[in-house]
Amino acid sequence: MQNILEHLAATLRQEAERGEVASYIPELATVPNHHFAIAVATADGGLFHAGDSAMPFSIQSVSKVFTLAIALGRIGDQLWTRVGREPSGNAFNSIVLLENEQGRPRNPFINAGAIVTTDEVLAGRTPKLALAEILGFMRAAADDADIHINKAVARSEARHGHKNAALAHFLRSFDNLKNPPDLTLGTYFHQCAIEMTVQQLAMAGRFLVDAPQMPSMISPEKARRICALMMTCGHYNGSGEFAFQVGLPGKSGVGGGILGIVPGKASIAVWAPGLNAQGNSLIGTKAIALLAKQMGWSVF
Amino acid sequence: MQNILEHLAATLRQEAERGEVASYIPELATVPNHHFAIAVATADGGLFHAGDSAMPFSIQSVSKVFTLAIALGRIGDQLWTRVGREPSGNAFNSIVLLENEQGRPRNPFINAGAIVTTDEVLAGRTPKLALAEILGFMRAAADDADIHINKAVARSEARHGHKNAALAHFLRSFDNLKNPPDLTLGTYFHQCAIEMTVQQLAMAGRFLVDAPQMPSMISPEKARRICALMMTCGHYNGSGEFAFQVGLPGKSGVGGGILGIVPGKASIAVWAPGLNAQGNSLIGTKAIALLAKQMGWSVF
Amino acid sequence: MQNILEHLAATLRQEAERGEVASYIPELATVPNHHFAIAVATADGGLFHAGDSAMPFSIQSVSKVFTLAIALGRIGDQLWTRVGREPSGNAFNSIVLLENEQGRPRNPFINAGAIVTTDEVLAGRTPKLALAEILGFMRAAADDADIHINKAVARSEARHGHKNAALAHFLRSFDNLKNPPDLTLGTYFHQCAIEMTVQQLAMAGRFLVDAPQMPSMISPEKARRICALMMTCGHYNGSGEFAFQVGLPGKSGVGGGILGIVPGKASIAVWAPGLNAQGNSLIGTKAIALLAKQMGWSVF
Amino acid sequence: MQNILEHLAATLRQEAERGEVASYIPELATVPNHHFAIAVATADGGLFHAGDSAMPFSIQSVSKVFTLAIALGRIGDQLWTRVGREPSGNAFNSIVLLENEQGRPRNPFINAGAIVTTDEVLAGRTPKLALAEILGFMRAAADDADIHINKAVARSEARHGHKNAALAHFLRSFDNLKNPPDLTLGTYFHQCAIEMTVQQLAMAGRFLVDAPQMPSMISPEKARRICALMMTCGHYNGSGEFAFQVGLPGKSGVGGGILGIVPGKASIAVWAPGLNAQGNSLIGTKAIALLAKQMGWSVF
Repeated sequence: MQNILEHLAATLRQEAERGEVASYIPELATVPNHHFAIAVATADGGLFHAGDSAMPFSIQSVSKVFTLAIALGRIGDQLWTRVGREPSGNAFNSIVLLENEQGRPRNPFINAGAIVTTDEVLAGRTPKLALAEILGFMRAAADDADIHINKAVARSEARHGHKNAALAHFLRSFDNLKNPPDLTLGTYFHQCAIEMTVQQLAMAGRFLVDAPQMPSMISPEKARRICALMMTCGHYNGSGEFAFQVGLPGKSGVGGGILGIVPGKASIAVWAPGLNAQGNSLIGTKAIALLAKQMGWSVF
Repeated sequence: MQNILEHLAATLRQEAERGEVASYIPELATVPNHHFAIAVATADGGLFHAGDSAMPFSIQSVSKVFTLAIALGRIGDQLWTRVGREPSGNAFNSIVLLENEQGRPRNPFINAGAIVTTDEVLAGRTPKLALAEILGFMRAAADDADIHINKAVARSEARHGHKNAALAHFLRSFDNLKNPPDLTLGTYFHQCAIEMTVQQLAMAGRFLVDAPQMPSMISPEKARRICALMMTCGHYNGSGEFAFQVGLPGKSGVGGGILGIVPGKASIAVWAPGLNAQGNSLIGTKAIALLAKQMGWSVF
Repeated sequence: MQNILEHLAATLRQEAERGEVASYIPELATVPNHHFAIAVATADGGLFHAGDSAMPFSIQSVSKVFTLAIALGRIGDQLWTRVGREPSGNAFNSIVLLENEQGRPRNPFINAGAIVTTDEVLAGRTPKLALAEILGFMRAAADDADIHINKAVARSEARHGHKNAALAHFLRSFDNLKNPPDLTLGTYFHQCAIEMTVQQLAMAGRFLVDAPQMPSMISPEKARRICALMMTCGHYNGSGEFAFQVGLPGKSGVGGGILGIVPGKASIAVWAPGLNAQGNSLIGTKAIALLAKQMGWSVF
Repeated sequence: MQNILEHLAATLRQEAERGEVASYIPELATVPNHHFAIAVATADGGLFHAGDSAMPFSIQSVSKVFTLAIALGRIGDQLWTRVGREPSGNAFNSIVLLENEQGRPRNPFINAGAIVTTDEVLAGRTPKLALAEILGFMRAAADDADIHINKAVARSEARHGHKNAALAHFLRSFDNLKNPPDLTLGTYFHQCAIEMTVQQLAMAGRFLVDAPQMPSMISPEKARRICALMMTCGHYNGSGEFAFQVGLPGKSGVGGGILGIVPGKASIAVWAPGLNAQGNSLIGTKAIALLAKQMGWSVF
């Protein structure tokens, strides 16, 4: 495995076409496009990694997997009265369907749905307490206390997050936001600004692998269902393509990270900052696809 | 004319089906549905009125006609780089087209376009100064200093105006809002909360009539063009219907007011709080249609 | 008037930017872009013209005004159960709203609504009979028997009219087409392939002018209402712009013709084959705007 | 397994809420709602079944899986220039996205995409020859020559298939239909009118299971990718829900059939004519969900 990852890293470092780094948040726009990192945590307890695997990056929307787990743990299927379980067919920050469907976002992985999920995690507490719970969950999952929020990124998102603010106010207008928009948004921006290395992220993803030695933080059934949502909705309007090319459940973030799950076998984290047209890591997707092919890892 | 208006008021007072009073702002929801008022300011200087014509009501979106005139007066055709001149085919508060058209609202009379127009009027000043200019314009047009903002309504709109807040943040995300969303929204909510009687509104509308004795606050060409926009866009997705039934340019507000212009002849104001499905005064539309028919007032 | 028209023709002949000739029908694509013609029929019985005013052109969607008049004459307001009266905000051949609104087209001037109108005119008869009625109406209105269908154009439209065929089948799926799609479409394509000179078209438009010496083919109220629809919907998603720039009710066709009405005063026909982005004659719009400005002809 | 299936059949026969039988094709509307059948073909060569498992039903859109395999076999990845691989977020027969995306359907399982796929299979041949190939593929996959087209159903679809006709003409208008619309539609309607029993369908699905004893009709990689598309797009705008509840790739048809694949393990066919709001078998979905749960069959 170590050889495979190192070979992958060496190969993908060379790729000329690397996509565009997300530009809507100034702090993300400055991340150099040449970075690449990959890590795999296996069901038998191994952890392998290559590339810039000790460098923390902004996990952004990958965080939505963890808040979804927390929200489902707290209120279970009640969450689905507020958010759907269908791919949207639209961009991650689209507001169109939200109007057509009267304020119930299509799924918890597009921005509107993730804001609702965070709103549920916040649940009347202070953002500080909610963020402590989110960080606590991730640290426990990763078995690593050294996971933090980059406050400069969070502030930058708040300053430039007008589309997310629009979504939050729109949700509120349909009474699908329980907390004041500013508090939910603040929590959401901070959650997205969490930084992890691919090693930490691969470790943190193990709770979805469903194998004996993996951390048991939610029921196997819940883990399977989160994986199903990652498969159908985890890459926005590139989800079908990821399922087609990679064949694994995955969740991407505009920071260039992707978390992929091989049920029963492994948790994979990749990071490469350049994005494709759908806002998913271009080189990261290739990396997971190549690794999955080489290992025969596909759920199909 | 006086007889006609009194007869109209008496007839329309009886109508059983009066529509629903706007409920999204608590202050507006309490206005009794039985009210009716009509006033006509004629090109020869007359003012006729009937019904509750001395009772102030919330002009709401009728205010958009005046801010449009102010914005056009200040920056002229540059305004059209920020907002279009086409009917939208959608509801007044729809955000769908705004996404499809990258933050340039279809016209200055749907909420998104009106927020842009107010943003232009605000132009870096304090909301207080901008509102003073708006009130000043209306008072001059109406030749009446006794026109004020109902601050309780403005506050209520601010508290419940989440759809408008969503529009403002969305516009900002496309860099089509120059001022901070909160300032523009605050100005917009206060402008919508201006209260006038139908007498004052009919008087204030005279600047669009284009006749010798009428106040000359904008060029005749600008007046004609504002009338054209009122005709095609003044009643949201009920504009075609209003043009078809009434045949006059008009602008409605969710407070139940409508300003109608008979080019060269008269300015008409009606008020009846109950709304039809498109958010326009149900009885008010009937009143203008009946008056226009009786007077032979149609632009066609 | 004659001088004005000749001057207009001379000026507009020079314009470099002339738009693109419609290309989706091969027969229309071959029409040279340099043509220009204008004619005005005045309420006092005059007829003035300049440019290529003796050259017949394909009136295309301008024909919708006449079938609307025929349909309204036959079934009156019942027509509105099948088609709306609102601007659509979309392109002339868009099918999107038709799905959202369950098969009831927004207005009789977008293609879907015109197909429904023609379907109503067809009314179980043979297309030949229906077309005879349409031609008969136009010849009577124009007081000119020499108006014909260009069958090569009609055949070409049938061969390349897949978008219109899609609309017809879609309407049928909602039971909003009474005749077999092929018959209605065949009638529609032939109606669009009628050829007229601007002189004939200006004469034919007089029935909408509503003045003593004008042909009285429909009631004044119907004429006013058709003018209202022309104003709000006559130029597709360029209707607001036409109202704003010209201030007159008008109906355009992709052949480059426009019929404009000055209520009580005149009927104007222009022809210039190049189209703007909304599918309306670029130079033709300019011509009517200049003429209207010079004559002080605006309904506002 | 046999016991499990019989118990399932007995239980689901009792269910009161059974959904609505598809009504848009008269021939399908007459199928009694009480039917239920299930069959499982296992990777070790077993075939188990219960309920009305010897009764043929109209497979409708389940046929799309087979034409996709044939088209991919013939032209490989070139197919994806004509059709996408993303969930649409819209109903199976929606035309909205097709307009927005200029005639390239989102995926091969919504109607528009399936019509393109069939158009590719037809490829200039007579519909008779294309249908012979489709039937030949299914018979070989099922190892059963007794699979036929119900011509009465095909004729009925042709008579009432105006939405599909609209889609075909729309595709043609974007040059994304190579054959005349009538020929492609005729082939499509006949392919949808193929009848099979659940035993035959479970047997026919084995080519997607990817196990040593299963028929090898396409490469394992193609099989995995078809499964990925079934997972993300196989149940229209109910695909996310099916993935969430069942966790297996599946393809439904409005006849009430569903084909589910357990990669490496089994092919499942169920039939229950009543549909849910998204047009997928209500009881059939429940049956596969229960079976998958009991067997621990989930790809996640």
